[in-house]
Amino acid sequence: MIIFNSSQIEKWERFYRANLINSLTGFKSVNLIGTKDIHGKTNLGIFSSIVHIGSNPALIGYINRPLEAAHHTIANIETTGVYTINHIHPNFVQQAHQTSAKYDLGISEFEEVGLTPEFISNIEVPFVKESKIKYALSLQEIIPIKLNNTFLVIGKVIYIQIEQDIISDDGFLNLDKSNTICSNGIDGYYTTELIDRYQYAKPGNLAQKIFQNGE
Amino acid sequence: MIIFNSSQIEKWERFYRANLINSLTGFKSVNLIGTKDIHGKTNLGIFSSIVHIGSNPALIGYINRPLEAAHHTIANIETTGVYTINHIHPNFVQQAHQTSAKYDLGISEFEEVGLTPEFISNIEVPFVKESKIKYALSLQEIIPIKLNNTFLVIGKVIYIQIEQDIISDDGFLNLDKSNTICSNGIDGYYTTELIDRYQYAKPGNLAQKIFQNGE
Repeated sequence: MIIFNSSQIEKWERFYRANLINSLTGFKSVNLIGTKDIHGKTNLGIFSSIVHIGSNPALIGYINRPLEAAHHTIANIETTGVYTINHIHPNFVQQAHQTSAKYDLGISEFEEVGLTPEFISNIEVPFVKESKIKYALSLQEIIPIKLNNTFLVIGKVIYIQIEQDIISDDGFLNLDKSNTICSNGIDGYYTTELIDRYQYAKPGNLAQKIFQNGE
Repeated sequence: MIIFNSSQIEKWERFYRANLINSLTGFKSVNLIGTKDIHGKTNLGIFSSIVHIGSNPALIGYINRPLEAAHHTIANIETTGVYTINHIHPNFVQQAHQTSAKYDLGISEFEEVGLTPEFISNIEVPFVKESKIKYALSLQEIIPIKLNNTFLVIGKVIYIQIEQDIISDDGFLNLDKSNTICSNGIDGYYTTELIDRYQYAKPGNLAQKIFQNGE
């Protein structure tokens, strides 16, 4: 068993600390956020800090790093008020990871990494054509986190597109069927395998497994 | 391909919407948060909204639901200023899920579900003995999210305890070795398998895989 206290954590070398603290939070939802700049140029970035805020209204947040480190996506979202979030699958994980490179303003990561922008319905920002689960959000609020100059960006889900066989009758998405990946740390990517779903828990006996697919 | 627009999303039956929107955000880090109330009684709750805020200082957040739905954990954190986050493994996923039942104030979920409170060092709140990766946080800020009466609770990591063989030389935690689980929706739990880590991405050629364990 290894133990670290506050003063040890503060003395770590920068990359060691980034690796460890980013793993400490556990597996993350990793997605591609699609936006468009004021000149209409598409932009795509990988984000591993998507967080569920609430279902009704359907609010989803992500943490944007300080502006000096990452300003393209948040600036575009402020400009257009709309953005897309796209799940990542194993067949394009390398391209998705590559969007984390610091490309100059005006360069589209879609073209640089080889992913396909897809424009759907009347939504003016690009989805990722290769993604099996994707949705668009309307910006609701950007909350500054003064502790470290990051931002909680919150959007409301306005459009969802999902491959049909992924949705269960009760609305649950079988993300193992879509082969949606998750991430760990700043550079590790993972596939998953279902243990099970569990029934709604009430005080008393332990909630039991919900057997999927008629098992 | 199934498509849903805003007005369809708003008309969904409550549980269908909760299932679908909670899956839409992708796989989640699912953890047990350990606290203590003003009378010294231990409390344990399962949370799937842990989010990395920053590495230096080491800040980690979670979303607390509205107070009328979930007030024990956040009230305890405000009282003591300290709390623990504990990874979940397949051998106690049923017990972890059971902590989501609405137990009365003053009832310890540790006793009710059969997990073991562990007190370490001079930290006054309980860890989960069964967990291989656990850490304590000092409350820094509770940011109200007025859009839906939730809260972003941010703590600074002050203590970390990890089983030794999980840490790589560069600080990366091999969460597949610890068999840390992740979740999807409100009731699905998953194990993971590493695809690979990728090198730091720079503009130009696609970043390559980092081969782990001398492969």
